[in-house]
Amino acid sequence: HTAFDPVEHPHRRLNALTGDWVLVSPHRAKRPWQGQVEAADNSVQPSYDETCYLCPGNVRINGAHNPAYQGPFVFQNDFAALNTQTPDASFNQEDLLQLQSEQGCSRVICYSPDHSKTLPELSISEIQAVIQCWIHQYQDLSRDHGWVQVFENKGAINGCSNPHPHGQIWASKGIPTLPAREDAQQAAYFAKHGKNLLQRYSELELADRSRLVLENADWLVVVPYWASWPFETLLLPKRVVQHLEQLTDAEQQSLAEILQALTIRYDNLFQCSFPYSMGWHCAPYGAASDTAHWQLHAHFYPPLLRSASVKKFMVGYEMLAETQRDMTPEQAAARLRDLPSTHYKQAAT
Amino acid sequence: HTAFDPVEHPHRRLNALTGDWVLVSPHRAKRPWQGQVEAADNSVQPSYDETCYLCPGNVRINGAHNPAYQGPFVFQNDFAALNTQTPDASFNQEDLLQLQSEQGCSRVICYSPDHSKTLPELSISEIQAVIQCWIHQYQDLSRDHGWVQVFENKGAINGCSNPHPHGQIWASKGIPTLPAREDAQQAAYFAKHGKNLLQRYSELELADRSRLVLENADWLVVVPYWASWPFETLLLPKRVVQHLEQLTDAEQQSLAEILQALTIRYDNLFQCSFPYSMGWHCAPYGAASDTAHWQLHAHFYPPLLRSASVKKFMVGYEMLAETQRDMTPEQAAARLRDLPSTHYKQAAT
Ligand SMILES: O=P(O)(O)O[C@H]1O[C@H](CO)[C@@H](O)[C@H](O)[C@H]1O
Ligand SMILES: O=P(O)(O)O[C@H]1O[C@H](CO)[C@@H](O)[C@H](O)[C@H]1O
Repeated sequence: HTAFDPVEHPHRRLNALTGDWVLVSPHRAKRPWQGQVEAADNSVQPSYDETCYLCPGNVRINGAHNPAYQGPFVFQNDFAALNTQTPDASFNQEDLLQLQSEQGCSRVICYSPDHSKTLPELSISEIQAVIQCWIHQYQDLSRDHGWVQVFENKGAINGCSNPHPHGQIWASKGIPTLPAREDAQQAAYFAKHGKNLLQRYSELELADRSRLVLENADWLVVVPYWASWPFETLLLPKRVVQHLEQLTDAEQQSLAEILQALTIRYDNLFQCSFPYSMGWHCAPYGAASDTAHWQLHAHFYPPLLRSASVKKFMVGYEMLAETQRDMTPEQAAARLRDLPSTHYKQAAT
Repeated sequence: HTAFDPVEHPHRRLNALTGDWVLVSPHRAKRPWQGQVEAADNSVQPSYDETCYLCPGNVRINGAHNPAYQGPFVFQNDFAALNTQTPDASFNQEDLLQLQSEQGCSRVICYSPDHSKTLPELSISEIQAVIQCWIHQYQDLSRDHGWVQVFENKGAINGCSNPHPHGQIWASKGIPTLPAREDAQQAAYFAKHGKNLLQRYSELELADRSRLVLENADWLVVVPYWASWPFETLLLPKRVVQHLEQLTDAEQQSLAEILQALTIRYDNLFQCSFPYSMGWHCAPYGAASDTAHWQLHAHFYPPLLRSASVKKFMVGYEMLAETQRDMTPEQAAARLRDLPSTHYKQAAT
């Protein structure tokens, strides 16, 4: 009769933010990989690319000219998924066919004029400028929208169609599915325990430290207890904050520092420009509801599993039954924690 | 002042089976694709491959020899995600760190000894043999498990590591996240409307026909009103059935026919061996609960969007906010419906 060991035995963990369970099968990491191998992204980019529709001065597909911008630059997405002009409509046939029109807008945010750079390669002050730009976008878009989704898709393997450092902002009147679920979970926890879910979670992680990747005066990064993606992380402030707009200057600077430190470690993990989707979740706007249960946070969802060229496929069982992971979150956190803090490209020179 | 037009205007649709919303942005299909292009899978495979661990007579990685099998062949997955021997354990710290051990097993099911074939290239009687094999597996595994997930990952682009025609079966004591959600949604609908959700949905689709792809005496295939993936389909029986084991011989044959017809159309869409994840959802076993609200169904989730080499990336906004699609389900259904019923490889000879 053996005792349960989470490093050896399959188990499920609950994602407290979504209410979904995740199947953890740590021993699966031992299986040999005979499937699709991706091209590792080690391309060297020029600082300016005349064919790039994001570089300063270039012409976009709709004929618009980008200005000769020096810092972050925001423009309306030329193929926006949302539109402010959409007429109102809703439809419901027997609770089976339900539709609502949606209003909103999509913008692109270039982090830097330099085509060759990625987030971990920007200086602290350049990352601070990106944070300030996010804050201005929230201030602007929160006037008319219930939800503002700031995110970045990084890497061709991850569906990003242009290596120029950039993110996106999609703002909608309504609150999308996943934030609505996080809102409900945080509210239910607050009602039951009288505590902020993620604030209390941070306290447990800072005490335990087995899933802690990085920490500074104002922020921490963990591989969450319930991580889906192999090297998924969660970035949290140490105090309760509902919106990026509420950060002090010092907190903005320490945020720039931890963003740089995290993305450098990501690049160092497989010595490549590490692909991910990242994004911010802040308390919803409008509907002057009480948001004491909300904690600001950023999710990083990287697709890689074993190397720069072998990713985790979320297919089959994951699509039909439950997300499944092949190593424990503690194993992933230890690997990220033990990486050098200097970017491998700089270490090499 | 324009009227709302679902083919022009962004809107959200509710997935009645999961309760999640999907953002539909039909005009996005017009944007040019400059991102990652995958290798199209037009490889010609031999009928027998001596390096394939699934071919009859070959040695697997753990040293086991496959028998000289003639029809479907099932064996224990050599790198099983679940294990029947896992000791019981559960853990809950402040509703934040929650863990449960899980017992179960994983099996592989080879559809045919012929390495070169895929489901659409099997004969009706060969597909019937696969259906019979699924039924035997349900009969066997339902004795000890609450959920039996039968699925297939097809195509290297979709994370399948071996082209030999095969699927998988993962059985667990507990009911995984997504089936549990479908169970709750179907039960709530039954409680509110006194009707089987998917049965009533089928009636609406058979009357409307704009999302109908295929139909025969016992079955229908639709692009569901709430489809996430561009060419996602839902396969439904015309009468209420809870389990594959309940199908009559005639229904098994008509199921083989519609499975062949659907997968042929899929191959014809982009003239390639069409990748997908597919799987069955049947009423949960055990817990002698009333399952009148349940309807048997199969989901097909194909990753392709524009061509054999350009897929839909579910990244960024999709991971952080809400699933988003670039064409309407009605447009996707019309394209699938209008395809020839003869496989393009046969039509060419
Ligand atoms: O078991 P396989 O085919 O090696 O692995 C594949 O299917 C599994 C079940 O859907 C997934 O968890 C893996 O990510 C995928 O690569
Ligand atoms: O807008 P992009 O970068 O062209 O497109 C990318 O990001 C979008 C938002 O996450 C996704 O919907 C697309 O599937 C992806 O290819």
